[in-house]
Formats: sequence, C-alpha cells, structure tokens
Amino acid sequence: MVYDIAIIGSGPAGLEAAITAKIRKQEIVLFGSKESSMKVAKAHTIQNYLGLPDIAGKDMAEAFLKHAESMGVEINEEQVTAVYAMGDSFMIQGATNMYEAKAVILATGVIAAKPYPNEERLLGAGVSYCATCDAALYKGKTAVIIGSSAKEEGEADFMSEYAAKTYYIPLYKEEVHVKPEVEVIREKPIEIIGDTKVEKLKTDQREIETDGVFVLREAVAPGQLVPGIETDGPHVKVNIDMSTSIPGLYAAGDIAGLPYQYIKAAGQGNTAVLTAVSYLTEKARREKNG
Amino acid sequence: MVYDIAIIGSGPAGLEAAITAKIRKQEIVLFGSKESSMKVAKAHTIQNYLGLPDIAGKDMAEAFLKHAESMGVEINEEQVTAVYAMGDSFMIQGATNMYEAKAVILATGVIAAKPYPNEERLLGAGVSYCATCDAALYKGKTAVIIGSSAKEEGEADFMSEYAAKTYYIPLYKEEVHVKPEVEVIREKPIEIIGDTKVEKLKTDQREIETDGVFVLREAVAPGQLVPGIETDGPHVKVNIDMSTSIPGLYAAGDIAGLPYQYIKAAGQGNTAVLTAVSYLTEKARREKNG
Repeated sequence: MVYDIAIIGSGPAGLEAAITAKIRKQEIVLFGSKESSMKVAKAHTIQNYLGLPDIAGKDMAEAFLKHAESMGVEINEEQVTAVYAMGDSFMIQGATNMYEAKAVILATGVIAAKPYPNEERLLGAGVSYCATCDAALYKGKTAVIIGSSAKEEGEADFMSEYAAKTYYIPLYKEEVHVKPEVEVIREKPIEIIGDTKVEKLKTDQREIETDGVFVLREAVAPGQLVPGIETDGPHVKVNIDMSTSIPGLYAAGDIAGLPYQYIKAAGQGNTAVLTAVSYLTEKARREKNG
Repeated sequence: MVYDIAIIGSGPAGLEAAITAKIRKQEIVLFGSKESSMKVAKAHTIQNYLGLPDIAGKDMAEAFLKHAESMGVEINEEQVTAVYAMGDSFMIQGATNMYEAKAVILATGVIAAKPYPNEERLLGAGVSYCATCDAALYKGKTAVIIGSSAKEEGEADFMSEYAAKTYYIPLYKEEVHVKPEVEVIREKPIEIIGDTKVEKLKTDQREIETDGVFVLREAVAPGQLVPGIETDGPHVKVNIDMSTSIPGLYAAGDIAGLPYQYIKAAGQGNTAVLTAVSYLTEKARREKNG
C-alpha cells in the first residue's frame, strides 16, 4: 500500500505528528521505538512542558505513548536507513522492507556526537548504519558493531550468524545480553582507519582489524538519511511551516534545529503534519483536475 | 524597573514563554488574563495536545495556569495598547501605566473577525481599542463600546464616569453587569460611519450618533499594537527562531501564523523566549566589552 504520510521518529515531534494525522484521517506509518525516544525516557525532570509540570522523563514518555495509543497510533520498530524522493512519492528503505508514502516527516532527533574520524569518508566502504541490512555481505568476515543502546544488541546477534567474527562495543553501562559468538569489548572507539575501505577500528586500548564498522546511533545525519536534502550542520533546513528543500518532505523537532526542547518538538510535529496534509490535499486536487 | 522580557498574552504561547523564562531566571512581566485565553477556555475538547489526551478547554486552561502559578508566574491584567521599539529597549503602553523591557514576546493571538468597514481608516479619529485610556477625552460626549467578552464591561463602567452617554454592545450571550448609567444594546455592529472622524455606528437595526467607537477584542492587529513591525495579513512575519523584523521582539502562537493549534503555540512560545534569552545574553556581553 501507499501511505499518505510516513513519520520517522517516535519522540514528541513524531508522536504529535501521528496523533494530529489521525484526527485528519490520514493513513500513516510511524517508525520508531515503542519506548518513545531514549532522550525523553532518560530525562531526569522536565519543568517546562506546559500542562505537565515537574514530570520525570519516564512518566512523560509514558503519557505521550498512552495518548498516541488511545488514538490508534501504532509504532513500527523497523529501522529506517534511507528515504528516497521519487518525484511523486517517497520510498522508505527499512532494514528489511521497503515502504512507500506520499509525504514524509523527519522527526529522528539529532546526533549529539560528532562522527568518528573517517566515518563519513568510508561510509559504504565498510562503514554502515545498519547491521541487519548488510549482514549477508559479511560471510566469513569480521565486523565491529558499536551500539548506543541495548536495542542494538539484536543487530550484533544477527551479524554473528553470518560473520566469522563479531565484536560488540556497547556505549552504555548496562549489562549486555548477546549470543556467546559475539565478543563484547568495553573500549572507547577513537577512529576508523582505512584507505579506500575500512581496515581497522582504533580504540583507546588497541587497533582491531575488521572489514566493517557498524555505528548504531539513535539517529543518523539527515544528509545520509535523505540524499539530496539541504542541511545546516547537523540539522535539516526548514521554513516556518516545517517544509524542507524537498517538496512533500517535512522536518520537526531536534533535527529541525535548536532549541532542543520537548514542547518545541511537539509543536513543530503538529505544524509539519498539517502542512503535509495541505500539500496532499492540493496535490489530489491538481491530479483530479488533470 | 526595566524587565528583561515582557510577554504579551496568556494563552499557551505566553504561558510557555513565561515558565521557560522563569527557568532561565529572567525578570518578566506577563500581560494577559487570569483565565488564560478565552479561546482555550471555551474550546470544547482538544484531542491533540500531546500528553493531555481528550481534554476540555476549561481543564486545559486550568492545567496551564496551575503550571505557571507553580513556577511563580504572575499575570498582569492591564491591557497593552501599544509597544514601541526605542532602540535599546521597548516601552509598553498599558491602559494606565508604562512599562519598560529589554525584549518583548508577542503572544496575543489573532483577530478572527475582520475589522468593521472604516475601522482602520478612523483609528485615532474616534475609533480606539482602549476605553480606559481615552475616557478623559469623552467628557460630555457619546461613546459606543463594543465588547467581545464580559471582561470588557469594566471599560464601559469607567467610560460612563466621563461620557455624557455610554452605549455598550456585548458580542456575547451571557448576561451583562454594568452600571445603570450604561445603556446596553443587543444589536449587531455593521459599519463605522464618518468622514474625517467618527460620526455614527451603523447596526443591524439603526444608526447611532456617537463621538467614539471602542472596539474591545481579545487581540488587536499586530501593526496597530507594534508600529513599524513587518506583517503578513493578520500575522507578524517571523523567522524559524521566532524573531521578527524588529531586533529584540519575538512573536509566537496564532499571531505568528497558521496553524492555529495549542501545541504549536506553546512550542513557539518556548522557542521565542529562548531566542530572546540568547539575544539578551549577547547584548550584555557586547555592552560589557564596550
């Protein structure tokens, strides 16, 4: 099926976009985490989300998810690796499936960390953001997977079914639960080394020889997610109605720029989806009139 | 005293701006109504304010006001009739007092109704938006006051202490409580009549001879409130950080454009005040360095 609107991200921007889309009777697909966003869920206390005074991040995430659920919003946990503007619609490349939508809202959040040295240069030459997508290419090879949260552990397990050697570097403190074939190493990645393709990962303790480095963050850089989109540093360039340089594609929340605030993200998600609905209405009208 | 930030409006945009300003330890003055905004309070049910599912307008206004109160936000009910950019700061003209602030956030909402015919042309020539401001000029004269809500009744009472004849036209259905000197007429204003100054008000039933027509709406047009500001129809022109054409002056909520949505208004209030704080910080830094 072709969705009206694909929403990528399940923080406040994505969830607000989803509930407003439901009110406007749009067919949507929402990609994200059933726990909302890690950033919200892990926040200590939020004081300035108007109407929810002095609330713990965990409780806020729960209130958001409950609201979305009450309106029939479902969350698809498949990772989105790329969004392609095809002119008349968008193809959304998931880890295992392709999706099609007439409009897209980017609400992925923003990468806090800088990319590792050579990460961008070697992207597609051993550097990747999706282990499950590329696992089949690693038969008999070595892969290092850097995971920013426990939800990436499944990617390491999946890789270990193909690769001869799989390392997993957790960037979090919690205990790691992966298959015995996966070697968990508690080291700090420093640099990706390689001339035309990945050769090694340098950590704070040694250099590890590897064919691939998978950097699994909560968000990827917008220019990598949507080839051709106009960006401004780590952000997507947006207009006041949340439109971007690509017609039919909107951005909201942290990915759309400072300030990084929950209420601002929710407000922009609302604006983005209403602009998308206007775009779709106008498009349908034009097509009907030939 | 000189306030850091004056916030004009107590709907979601103004209240969110106020609580975020408090967190950032700004000295603020917030002009508005102790009942938040009429639009919020009278809304039937709001379904898409993320985190407050399926909430009555009355309950939402109460949640907002309680949140603001818990953070020490006070609401000044004096009507603001004009904001003047003085270069280094702003003078805010209230009905009875003048205020000074280093930055201003406009969050007044937007006028839903069109102005009456000749209203704009005769502004300052018998048409006014503040009866208490001009009452002293009406000694021995006739004044018609058009009130959009019960809170304007005090303006009619005040006018009747000066004017020889005061008419009050309520645009709402609730019972009116004014002094016996005020004549309440339930007619629909159609047109303001006058060549170089106001002569009559035409209603759906007759023409009333009068020296002044006071149109008391919840909001006034932004160009009338802030002389010189760049507007776009009934809205203030804003950038993505909520800055306007006047440095140090920001806009948020309905006055800043479509969509007219509560969560969008709150989000913009947040952005506006954080941009104002950056502006004030930068200004202080420059002044310190000479």
